[in-house]
Amino acid sequence: MLEKTMRVNALYDFYQQLLTSKQQQYMDLYYLNDFSLGEIAEEFHVSRQAVYDNLKRTESMLESFEENLGLYKKYQERLKLLADLKSAVRTHFGESHDILNIIYKLENLD
Amino acid sequence: MLEKTMRVNALYDFYQQLLTSKQQQYMDLYYLNDFSLGEIAEEFHVSRQAVYDNLKRTESMLESFEENLGLYKKYQERLKLLADLKSAVRTHFGESHDILNIIYKLENLD
Repeated sequence: MLEKTMRVNALYDFYQQLLTSKQQQYMDLYYLNDFSLGEIAEEFHVSRQAVYDNLKRTESMLESFEENLGLYKKYQERLKLLADLKSAVRTHFGESHDILNIIYKLENLD
Repeated sequence: MLEKTMRVNALYDFYQQLLTSKQQQYMDLYYLNDFSLGEIAEEFHVSRQAVYDNLKRTESMLESFEENLGLYKKYQERLKLLADLKSAVRTHFGESHDILNIIYKLENLD
């Protein structure tokens, strides 16, 4: 997957609840179900250009949410720290299951 | 501080970047600088009712952001897990500074 597409997908994971249901439908079809612009246009009885504009506007909203809230960036920083933490726990103390279990819970919070 | 006020303050911490600058100004004056509705109204040359309506609408937007993104709830869950983690590390291994340092970094990410 192209890097840009991966980023849009990641941002969509974090911010989809802030989009309208129409925006979510287009994004789901285009990015998750691999529909073409033309196929989405047909499905919704609108022009291909209208679908394109809607998707572009959604992408720019996702980037703006990220600029303001930084959830994806913080998520990446948190994953990195949790990896460091697991590694430090294992190095010093071997497999300490209760501690590692808490770390797994932290990893699954996002 | 009243529980409701504490909650509004906490949600404001997480979502203020999604509000308009006018909303942020009213919230800052009312919640952080303890201005009265009348004082804010005077400052902005609007009615007391207009300030009240704006603040109520902002509070309901903050609750809606929280309903959709749940950042405050996740933050509280994360803090609780990090407290459990520190306690487990200390119980099993005493003061392990490199591990505790990573935990402190995680606590300060939000």
